[in-house]
Amino acid sequence: MNDQNPIHGAHANPFGELIGLRFDYWGNGESRCALDVTPKLMNPNGVLHGAVVYALADTGMGGALISALDGGRYCTTVEIKITYFRPVVSGQLVCESRVVHQGKRLAFLESSVRDGDGPVARASGTFAILEPRGSVGS
Amino acid sequence: MNDQNPIHGAHANPFGELIGLRFDYWGNGESRCALDVTPKLMNPNGVLHGAVVYALADTGMGGALISALDGGRYCTTVEIKITYFRPVVSGQLVCESRVVHQGKRLAFLESSVRDGDGPVARASGTFAILEPRGSVGS
Amino acid sequence: MNDQNPIHGAHANPFGELIGLRFDYWGNGESRCALDVTPKLMNPNGVLHGAVVYALADTGMGGALISALDGGRYCTTVEIKITYFRPVVSGQLVCESRVVHQGKRLAFLESSVRDGDGPVARASGTFAILEPRGSVGS
Amino acid sequence: MNDQNPIHGAHANPFGELIGLRFDYWGNGESRCALDVTPKLMNPNGVLHGAVVYALADTGMGGALISALDGGRYCTTVEIKITYFRPVVSGQLVCESRVVHQGKRLAFLESSVRDGDGPVARASGTFAILEPRGSVGS
Repeated sequence: MNDQNPIHGAHANPFGELIGLRFDYWGNGESRCALDVTPKLMNPNGVLHGAVVYALADTGMGGALISALDGGRYCTTVEIKITYFRPVVSGQLVCESRVVHQGKRLAFLESSVRDGDGPVARASGTFAILEPRGSVGS
Repeated sequence: MNDQNPIHGAHANPFGELIGLRFDYWGNGESRCALDVTPKLMNPNGVLHGAVVYALADTGMGGALISALDGGRYCTTVEIKITYFRPVVSGQLVCESRVVHQGKRLAFLESSVRDGDGPVARASGTFAILEPRGSVGS
Repeated sequence: MNDQNPIHGAHANPFGELIGLRFDYWGNGESRCALDVTPKLMNPNGVLHGAVVYALADTGMGGALISALDGGRYCTTVEIKITYFRPVVSGQLVCESRVVHQGKRLAFLESSVRDGDGPVARASGTFAILEPRGSVGS
Repeated sequence: MNDQNPIHGAHANPFGELIGLRFDYWGNGESRCALDVTPKLMNPNGVLHGAVVYALADTGMGGALISALDGGRYCTTVEIKITYFRPVVSGQLVCESRVVHQGKRLAFLESSVRDGDGPVARASGTFAILEPRGSVGS
């Protein structure tokens, strides 16, 4: 078990490690992940790159949905829309995600990202629910 | 002049460098940026993390829009929606972005991301156009 | 005062009337609007046309935001993403909208649409906040 | 055969008729539909209601995708994002839609809406591809 990558068991999460993403919680269709804002994550304007905020939402949604799937089913992102409220320059970002609606083959999730000063971004996404690898019909 | 970061002149782009993003072209409201798919950019499923594809679109749109702004104006991402067509495991990703509509304070852009096998993702976004730092009213 | 169109005072709302949209509440950056599912609102598949659900979200967000603006400021939709959970064939649809984040020139809103059986759709949108008509700079 | 409702054969399209939507073309994963801007389609600001523009995109995408499906398969909207460039007060709106990517169960489409003065809006959407009604597994 790799505590840095709880949502995928023993599998490594190279990109998550590259940006310092960690999961605080996952279960029951919800998750909370976080990362520290460091200089290597900045964009040319000297603020946190928007793709890092996006990474929290995308990964957090995946963790929330995986926690709601049984029998070896897994998921993949179909689309995500993210909206930014303000730039971030330092501190810690926390992202809370949850499954809002879960069908047989598709799920809809939402994420809220905040730092110590309040809300930073909101995201919503569609994920495809996939049958276990190797199963008939997958 | 920093050729690795053409869209922002001499400013560094730490996150862009972290993931190996480079600009091939920018000008007239268009841009083309690219990166090589490397092991450190993978997600736990062993495919390229979606946030890396997103980073190309977000940064590429910013570059395309900056190239269409004069007088020191700059821009920031309001929202982006990205849709993924298939997973990527290796090779080079290329992202072409363009300004589809430019107003006084908002612009709408689209990006297409492809690898050697064809289309990988599409994104569309709203950017805010900002007056030069230090100008009256900004 | 036109009770069928509370958010815009005495102005008529022809399209809202065409589809039977009514406001139950608006104030403090929130709104609730509704309509009855009638045969003329159906699509060729015999279910409610998705644009009618969208109309609730778009109009509801506008009402929620207008209720949070003072001094004659008004608003216009920049973009909305709507996600559908299931088809609707009869009954009443209710849409609750709220301002999630309000800046000087842009606001971010979310809407939830439900019928008697539960959630039907979710939407999120960016609105531009406009200065009063005729004001300097508008 | 109902030429006013080509995408759905002999089935009626009540909402499409309510707003005056007509198809000019559909085939090979593309479609073009249109409507005349009339007083009953206005919002309280005296401009065309955004839901009418959305209706063109949603219906147009559905028509484009249906034209690319064989064997009785049909489709339903999962999500659409629409972005508005400017208000419309009169004239005719034309919407061109196309399938950008088609998978086994999901398709991605884009629409452009214009009037006589140029671009009015852009939309992109995810549609679910459904097996024929009554088929095993549907």
